[in-house]
Amino acid sequence: VSGRLSVVGLGPGGEGLRTPLASKRLAEATDLVGYGPYLDQVGVLPAEPRRHASDNRQESARARVAIELACRGGRVAVVSSGDPGVFAMATAVVEELHRGLEERGEGGDGGAERWASIELEIIPGVTAATAAAALVGAPLGHDFCVISLSDVLKPWEVVEGRLSAAAGADFVLALYNPISSQRPWQLGRALDLIGAHRRASTPVAVVKDVGRPAEWAEVVSLDSVPVEKIDMRTVLLVGSSTTRAFVSPVGRVWMYTPRRYP
Amino acid sequence: VSGRLSVVGLGPGGEGLRTPLASKRLAEATDLVGYGPYLDQVGVLPAEPRRHASDNRQESARARVAIELACRGGRVAVVSSGDPGVFAMATAVVEELHRGLEERGEGGDGGAERWASIELEIIPGVTAATAAAALVGAPLGHDFCVISLSDVLKPWEVVEGRLSAAAGADFVLALYNPISSQRPWQLGRALDLIGAHRRASTPVAVVKDVGRPAEWAEVVSLDSVPVEKIDMRTVLLVGSSTTRAFVSPVGRVWMYTPRRYP
Repeated sequence: VSGRLSVVGLGPGGEGLRTPLASKRLAEATDLVGYGPYLDQVGVLPAEPRRHASDNRQESARARVAIELACRGGRVAVVSSGDPGVFAMATAVVEELHRGLEERGEGGDGGAERWASIELEIIPGVTAATAAAALVGAPLGHDFCVISLSDVLKPWEVVEGRLSAAAGADFVLALYNPISSQRPWQLGRALDLIGAHRRASTPVAVVKDVGRPAEWAEVVSLDSVPVEKIDMRTVLLVGSSTTRAFVSPVGRVWMYTPRRYP
Repeated sequence: VSGRLSVVGLGPGGEGLRTPLASKRLAEATDLVGYGPYLDQVGVLPAEPRRHASDNRQESARARVAIELACRGGRVAVVSSGDPGVFAMATAVVEELHRGLEERGEGGDGGAERWASIELEIIPGVTAATAAAALVGAPLGHDFCVISLSDVLKPWEVVEGRLSAAAGADFVLALYNPISSQRPWQLGRALDLIGAHRRASTPVAVVKDVGRPAEWAEVVSLDSVPVEKIDMRTVLLVGSSTTRAFVSPVGRVWMYTPRRYP
């Protein structure tokens, strides 16, 4: 029995930004595995697959479920929002397969056979940073860093060190997972750290629910980021020293980082 | 007359990774503007638009042509490979429109009227870094930086400063535009700078022509990057201190950066 395990990126929201290859894999799947809201985002499929929804933060368990299903011959699609390789399920799946391989020599459950019986593929998607950037212009037009502010899986000191290094070297910063009920103060601290290297007027794009019906984007200055409006479904794009913002004649604020660096 | 100016990301290569929204805008266009090879990549369209091909490095001139066509009421698609906001045409277009606005007060050619008469939109795409990552596993599973090694528009010292800062803070690095005939030594120097902060065995993915027929990917170690095989259509993904590589039972090398940071 040979199964297929596809880790599929849905892109940021609606079907307009979901790649044909992702849609094809979803349509071919016998099983969909993923965080509940992402499975809902998939929508109705012609040959409705079995749906295995799980809670957030259950990435490893979810990866094991998907591997088991593929080992039994399923065509399994592990569903991620955005790009599955950016703070999403691709890592968890590859990690679990590697763990299975390594455990084999220690009386494990046959990692090598699993790998050998599964065709693994990762289907990339449009990630939130570039989808958010597109809504406000071209803030990522120059070198940039992508940082998750979550300290659930890494020490907060590592986050701080990276923020300071990236801000000091004048990268544009894309901040994922900026805030949650368990992590209320980290975003404010992150903005303070960045502020040590940037003018208060530095443009910042705050983009929520990108690609979804509730989509909302605003360009503000670094000293007036509306922290109270920000949640886990928000991405922040903090400009570099050269990033500019301006208002179009129809009143829309645009933001871009020039291609030329002085 | 009201025109539309869509800056469209084709994604990394074939139609499987081109979003439906991008395809729709191409199909609706009266005019396509872009670098010749990217226009070729678009393929045949139902209502064949006029194609305005230009050489590489003509971004500003190309943006002006596109704006002019939209001002005359065209439905113009400016075509970029990958995501148009990542080292591509979105910045050039927004820059040119901003320039037009600013020149207005100085006897310029009516920037405000241009903006007011054009509907501008950026259609994001799958960028090369995440498409390349998907081919080899999940190297971008943790914080990462995206850096262009081209020093055509920025001083090389800025590139060096950013490489050292990103490597020092243990980011994964995605390197775009790694080498060209005019820039033969920069990649070697960049790898040396990164090597000051990383083990020689650090996994590096070298991915060329991602999503195209000639697609080629290899995972090597930092001290054995095949510089002679690398060109402008190559992306390099250099692991952090935690990035791991392993060989699957069917002989494929996979690379990932664990979600958990020690």
